[in-house]
Amino acid sequence: MFLPHKVLEQKLLFLLSEDLGQGDVTTSLIVPENSVAEAEVVAKDNGVVAGIEEGKILLESLGLKAEVLVRDGSGIKPGQVLIKMTGNTRKMLSTERTLLNIISRMSGIATTTRKIAETLKKAGLKTKVACTRKTAPGLLYFDKKAVLIGGGDPHRLHLDDLILIKDNHITVAGSIERALKGAKKNASFTKRIEIEVTKPEHAVAAANAGVDIIMLDNFTPKRIIRAINMLKKAKLYGKAILEASGGITSENVLEFASTGVDIVSLGEITHSPCALNVSLELVKTRFSES
Amino acid sequence: MFLPHKVLEQKLLFLLSEDLGQGDVTTSLIVPENSVAEAEVVAKDNGVVAGIEEGKILLESLGLKAEVLVRDGSGIKPGQVLIKMTGNTRKMLSTERTLLNIISRMSGIATTTRKIAETLKKAGLKTKVACTRKTAPGLLYFDKKAVLIGGGDPHRLHLDDLILIKDNHITVAGSIERALKGAKKNASFTKRIEIEVTKPEHAVAAANAGVDIIMLDNFTPKRIIRAINMLKKAKLYGKAILEASGGITSENVLEFASTGVDIVSLGEITHSPCALNVSLELVKTRFSES
Amino acid sequence: MFLPHKVLEQKLLFLLSEDLGQGDVTTSLIVPENSVAEAEVVAKDNGVVAGIEEGKILLESLGLKAEVLVRDGSGIKPGQVLIKMTGNTRKMLSTERTLLNIISRMSGIATTTRKIAETLKKAGLKTKVACTRKTAPGLLYFDKKAVLIGGGDPHRLHLDDLILIKDNHITVAGSIERALKGAKKNASFTKRIEIEVTKPEHAVAAANAGVDIIMLDNFTPKRIIRAINMLKKAKLYGKAILEASGGITSENVLEFASTGVDIVSLGEITHSPCALNVSLELVKTRFSES
Amino acid sequence: MFLPHKVLEQKLLFLLSEDLGQGDVTTSLIVPENSVAEAEVVAKDNGVVAGIEEGKILLESLGLKAEVLVRDGSGIKPGQVLIKMTGNTRKMLSTERTLLNIISRMSGIATTTRKIAETLKKAGLKTKVACTRKTAPGLLYFDKKAVLIGGGDPHRLHLDDLILIKDNHITVAGSIERALKGAKKNASFTKRIEIEVTKPEHAVAAANAGVDIIMLDNFTPKRIIRAINMLKKAKLYGKAILEASGGITSENVLEFASTGVDIVSLGEITHSPCALNVSLELVKTRFSES
Amino acid sequence: MFLPHKVLEQKLLFLLSEDLGQGDVTTSLIVPENSVAEAEVVAKDNGVVAGIEEGKILLESLGLKAEVLVRDGSGIKPGQVLIKMTGNTRKMLSTERTLLNIISRMSGIATTTRKIAETLKKAGLKTKVACTRKTAPGLLYFDKKAVLIGGGDPHRLHLDDLILIKDNHITVAGSIERALKGAKKNASFTKRIEIEVTKPEHAVAAANAGVDIIMLDNFTPKRIIRAINMLKKAKLYGKAILEASGGITSENVLEFASTGVDIVSLGEITHSPCALNVSLELVKTRFSES
Amino acid sequence: MFLPHKVLEQKLLFLLSEDLGQGDVTTSLIVPENSVAEAEVVAKDNGVVAGIEEGKILLESLGLKAEVLVRDGSGIKPGQVLIKMTGNTRKMLSTERTLLNIISRMSGIATTTRKIAETLKKAGLKTKVACTRKTAPGLLYFDKKAVLIGGGDPHRLHLDDLILIKDNHITVAGSIERALKGAKKNASFTKRIEIEVTKPEHAVAAANAGVDIIMLDNFTPKRIIRAINMLKKAKLYGKAILEASGGITSENVLEFASTGVDIVSLGEITHSPCALNVSLELVKTRFSES
Repeated sequence: MFLPHKVLEQKLLFLLSEDLGQGDVTTSLIVPENSVAEAEVVAKDNGVVAGIEEGKILLESLGLKAEVLVRDGSGIKPGQVLIKMTGNTRKMLSTERTLLNIISRMSGIATTTRKIAETLKKAGLKTKVACTRKTAPGLLYFDKKAVLIGGGDPHRLHLDDLILIKDNHITVAGSIERALKGAKKNASFTKRIEIEVTKPEHAVAAANAGVDIIMLDNFTPKRIIRAINMLKKAKLYGKAILEASGGITSENVLEFASTGVDIVSLGEITHSPCALNVSLELVKTRFSES
Repeated sequence: MFLPHKVLEQKLLFLLSEDLGQGDVTTSLIVPENSVAEAEVVAKDNGVVAGIEEGKILLESLGLKAEVLVRDGSGIKPGQVLIKMTGNTRKMLSTERTLLNIISRMSGIATTTRKIAETLKKAGLKTKVACTRKTAPGLLYFDKKAVLIGGGDPHRLHLDDLILIKDNHITVAGSIERALKGAKKNASFTKRIEIEVTKPEHAVAAANAGVDIIMLDNFTPKRIIRAINMLKKAKLYGKAILEASGGITSENVLEFASTGVDIVSLGEITHSPCALNVSLELVKTRFSES
Repeated sequence: MFLPHKVLEQKLLFLLSEDLGQGDVTTSLIVPENSVAEAEVVAKDNGVVAGIEEGKILLESLGLKAEVLVRDGSGIKPGQVLIKMTGNTRKMLSTERTLLNIISRMSGIATTTRKIAETLKKAGLKTKVACTRKTAPGLLYFDKKAVLIGGGDPHRLHLDDLILIKDNHITVAGSIERALKGAKKNASFTKRIEIEVTKPEHAVAAANAGVDIIMLDNFTPKRIIRAINMLKKAKLYGKAILEASGGITSENVLEFASTGVDIVSLGEITHSPCALNVSLELVKTRFSES
Repeated sequence: MFLPHKVLEQKLLFLLSEDLGQGDVTTSLIVPENSVAEAEVVAKDNGVVAGIEEGKILLESLGLKAEVLVRDGSGIKPGQVLIKMTGNTRKMLSTERTLLNIISRMSGIATTTRKIAETLKKAGLKTKVACTRKTAPGLLYFDKKAVLIGGGDPHRLHLDDLILIKDNHITVAGSIERALKGAKKNASFTKRIEIEVTKPEHAVAAANAGVDIIMLDNFTPKRIIRAINMLKKAKLYGKAILEASGGITSENVLEFASTGVDIVSLGEITHSPCALNVSLELVKTRFSES
Repeated sequence: MFLPHKVLEQKLLFLLSEDLGQGDVTTSLIVPENSVAEAEVVAKDNGVVAGIEEGKILLESLGLKAEVLVRDGSGIKPGQVLIKMTGNTRKMLSTERTLLNIISRMSGIATTTRKIAETLKKAGLKTKVACTRKTAPGLLYFDKKAVLIGGGDPHRLHLDDLILIKDNHITVAGSIERALKGAKKNASFTKRIEIEVTKPEHAVAAANAGVDIIMLDNFTPKRIIRAINMLKKAKLYGKAILEASGGITSENVLEFASTGVDIVSLGEITHSPCALNVSLELVKTRFSES
Repeated sequence: MFLPHKVLEQKLLFLLSEDLGQGDVTTSLIVPENSVAEAEVVAKDNGVVAGIEEGKILLESLGLKAEVLVRDGSGIKPGQVLIKMTGNTRKMLSTERTLLNIISRMSGIATTTRKIAETLKKAGLKTKVACTRKTAPGLLYFDKKAVLIGGGDPHRLHLDDLILIKDNHITVAGSIERALKGAKKNASFTKRIEIEVTKPEHAVAAANAGVDIIMLDNFTPKRIIRAINMLKKAKLYGKAILEASGGITSENVLEFASTGVDIVSLGEITHSPCALNVSLELVKTRFSES
């Protein structure tokens, strides 16, 4: 998901502009034009940091110097300085909230993702944690990137990069077989095909039909095991990637992951992330001469 | 915060476009062009619904018929149908996730807001709950509107509608007095002035200087009471609106609200909302003739 | 109304792009690619300059060096050099008109505003002059900023930063009282409330109801005095800010301002400004070697 | 300058959006969602109306019914109803100011243009009045269209539709001859070539070189006559269109026009237009049932 | 690649706007506002039509009625009417060129694609023809969709939907093995992995490493056969999809396709398409009364 | 057609963004963040290069150094290095395809244009070759600029810079005379007027009416000669520019050009250009230390 900085800058300035409206009326009343400051973005929580690259790009696009003290994906603790910046104080204060909102949301997502990823790893499992498209509307890029930084799989990036046949598609097609037949025949060779199934026997049918990924939707761990056993019996286990999805939370994720699926995916990582607290603190201010 | 539907439609289509990328590759493979469906947006959780107006506008802008069965702000329960829609199935399925993401985020925010608002009301308090600018980046409009629907105060809409003098502004100005002097002299008569204070005695100074709103930042309830007592003693209580902010959560909100402040504001309402679960279910599909 | 330069740059490039169309066909025919020039923006009129900050940002965004010789808000006279620039001649000539249009409109607005502000000041009045939302469509930011530079009050920046109850709102509500009741109950604590009244007794009712600002709409000076006397009698004078609006021009403004209102607002400042004449003059041209 | 309505609608919604910010906070507090109104746009001044087409498109794009009672270009008088509209009151009130700003600016421009055009006509002259590119920044389309409606010539629409060699271009080229040589050789056959001259003898040189249009820049009427006499002597009068520009105002325009030039162009028409006063008046309001 | 019409409409209006500039100056001079016409889009060449859906959306978005007489993907012949439209003549004429440019480019691409697809089919081959990302810049959606309509595979839709490891990536990684190791370990499970190889033995290495698709880059047919033989020997033939790319044209495509590869991809389909000639003909015009 | 680089940069980043989608997934998996490379854009075909200026702006806007080794309009041959670049490898690889697509399309157009221009020149003709508005949709600027670089005339840049009365306009007007009468009377003096005629005698009528340019539409060379003879007889030859259009290809262009017309215009130059092959080759890669 690499975007050249200039392109990412445009997304960031769009977010900033919304917050600015016709301009920061407080800063222009109180902060002199030639005020120059040193400031720090400081963590207030433990967690995994993300959004540092975005923060640096945003600050630099405004003409501020930004020194990054921690890389995206690092563990951070309260009091730790994440970014040091120097430059025009007005610019800093008018971008403070947008900057912090980006870092705190992305870090919140990365922190939760990392926690789950490590739970699975510690349990000796190879299962990967993935997010879904249940992001904040309009923030697909930022939410998915935070998942990546946390060690998760970003899943689909939008509607054009994976053929994912869901319940409603199957309803329209009439059956799994018919849905798959159409898809297999006409799908671009560049795309994987995933299908959502609601019964263990459908998983067998899907594997038989040669899909790349099978999503076991809203299966209990027990039911997942049943599906896997049926796949093993049919000598189809391992032929398709198995993704468990629906009803999985950070609490019960281990139970799902231990069943033998390849992927566990959780909506909550991106639809209900807990923001990580960060703040911007002025260290020094002075007046520039020019 | 009224936006004519056409203007809101543009924001919504922007969100949808991000998710579509170059188009929905699954739907075009499986769903025939002339497939027509009836579908429902169904609640899966208890809560307060929001985003229904936005959902209706989005669906109608795509040429789908949308019948709203519940108004924004209503309490909903699992299984309840929120919107009924009919029309082209491809359009429905390609907008499903964006639609649900909007409704589930906004409803999550409205639900938390309402819960706090009712806690305060039941306790016989007139204190109002407010959110902050700690929203998802780029979603100020939607997050603030959801707070309104939940019965909260949206606080600043961006940086141009309130003069809010924060710690960093005071640092630059040198003192509360100097910050306020500049602000009072040059501020537009159309704007309120709020100042963030960190010590009870500063609240008195601020009230004395004639600010409209005093934000008691990161005060414990005890300390808030001390500030209020000092204001009463100085016969300044009631002259400025008092807002408590920082460290307030849905758990401890009552303790803060009972101190006598006018407003309690919580970042978590918008920076860490818990999405309310909703889904889209096809009820019937058929093929249109034309 | 502080906007970081990068954000302001985007607004300015948008204005420039409109004028460029598919490109400057004259310049590419006549001015060699490697032509380099020194040029000056020169005043042709007396007045108060504005738009210099915008001009500098625009020129620098194109890669031209711009030295500002006069700050926004200064008095200027014919022949005075406002900006010196050096760089690629093609860039200069293709941006000349947009640059001059911005400076001449903003300076025209600032000049009129300053003239009125000084008339009031010389008369020993504290009354402030304000503009309205009657700007050139799409130029709210620039027009309002020019008013600020001229020493006026920018009034509302758009529809979201002040609750301003106008005649048509009162008509819908049924009465001033009903309009105010709804507004007071549900308005965000961050916003001032202003109401437009057409009769002196309504001013009293409004002050009684606790509005922040009362707009005396289309009152003659005599009538304003009557309203003020009624307010004094009711001991309400001074409780709300008084704004006189409608029918006020730079000719009669003193008469209105002397009545004792706090604010006089004039549409003409922004809807019919007289542009201040400025031109761009090449001082030297040469060919660069690279 | 025909733009399909859908395309013009996008320009208009852009202008409206700026004014709306995060939404109309007054209207949503006071005007119920189901309020429906009849309203009229009423003239308050005498003049020539313009912007009616734009107004209709804007209103209809929001879902309001708009009946146009007067066509762009008609003479109007105080009290005259220009547009009748019916529909959702919230939509009306939140678009009122943008609508009126467009109509009043465009009508102001059309009115001045018409006045000059008729002055020339009454004097029995065929001279045409033109505007320049000295418009409000970003409003080229609207300002030029208003000039057309007023009976004037819109001159260049932007930098790509006419080769107009100005003083600064000649400075870079070294001489009129060299500037013209380059231009004539490489210019597209689809474009006219105009050159700005500052001395009568240059007009002869330009006509000799075969330009399409000669701009007599900052010539007094006397000097224009001298130039024309020299052209006649050289049998070049009539070969090129003659445009007088610079220092021409609505007061002295007749003097310039009587010299025998084809075009008189005035910056003031678009850089300093006097807005024509129009207002929006609610006629009736009621509550819709759905 | 399904896009809801409203979203596609926005892309189309963007294309139209570029062509309109400040408006169609010819049409407004000659075609009366109330002129209404019937017109037809008529084919002038044999081929496969595409862009009909886009044309209909564009016309309808402008308020014209459009009746489609032929579906995208149909064979057409000179004189055949593709779309019948009725409505405002000004709108028709100002959108004519954009409409025809879209249909003629897309039809040109579809025609070439179909020709190749049928050549392969007639030869009894199952090989599929694909395009590349060598499209007209900015027209990825339209070019890829035209390929689909012609019966080809659209290949990658942009840089985010397939992991395609090209020569330059391998250079950076140091070797195929190292490139693949990194990719396999960290790639999202939702994406296929393709690798470009330049030697037959590399194809074996890639298949061994478990890639999904192997691109035989700039291989002669002979060399492709050698690679396939090596894969067969290693029992790896059939494990990965084989794509031949580079140097393939509509003339030599059969030779490449007969080697046994699954996909032949040709840049020329989209980078050098031959536009199919279509024109817009007025059938009838009249004046509407309103 | 000069656009300041900053404005052109915005167009280029828009094209790049489409191709990037949510980001380059291959590059981020394989190319380390601190990889730095030297690379070259190398020609693979003979031809005339164009798009070099655009390429340099695009690369530099991303923060890459770009050294241009050949100027737009130069002849190039296979193996020739066009641009050398150094900088971050990820940025290079993610922009490679957009960069090459721009250069190869523009060079293809310039090459064809030059070939025709030289054919005419070698034949001793002064006839100029022009393109039409039959460009790739949305690429008017790039296509027209490539024609200019190739030595052709760009013709109209969009619908607002020339009054070009086509068959459909004449149909609506009723006759050539009526079409011309309206146009001549109301057209801006800044615009040329061109009319499309389908019969030799209409050319005479048009010349008589004083149009600037006559387009002989779909005339055979023989018929063109007849028209010219009729014009000569009427002593109108030379009064209007003669453009032959329709049915002209690079094969038969000489035949048309020899008739005595001033301009031959060909749609194929821009609607069916043959892309010139260029590639990007990494020369050296290393890891930067910071």
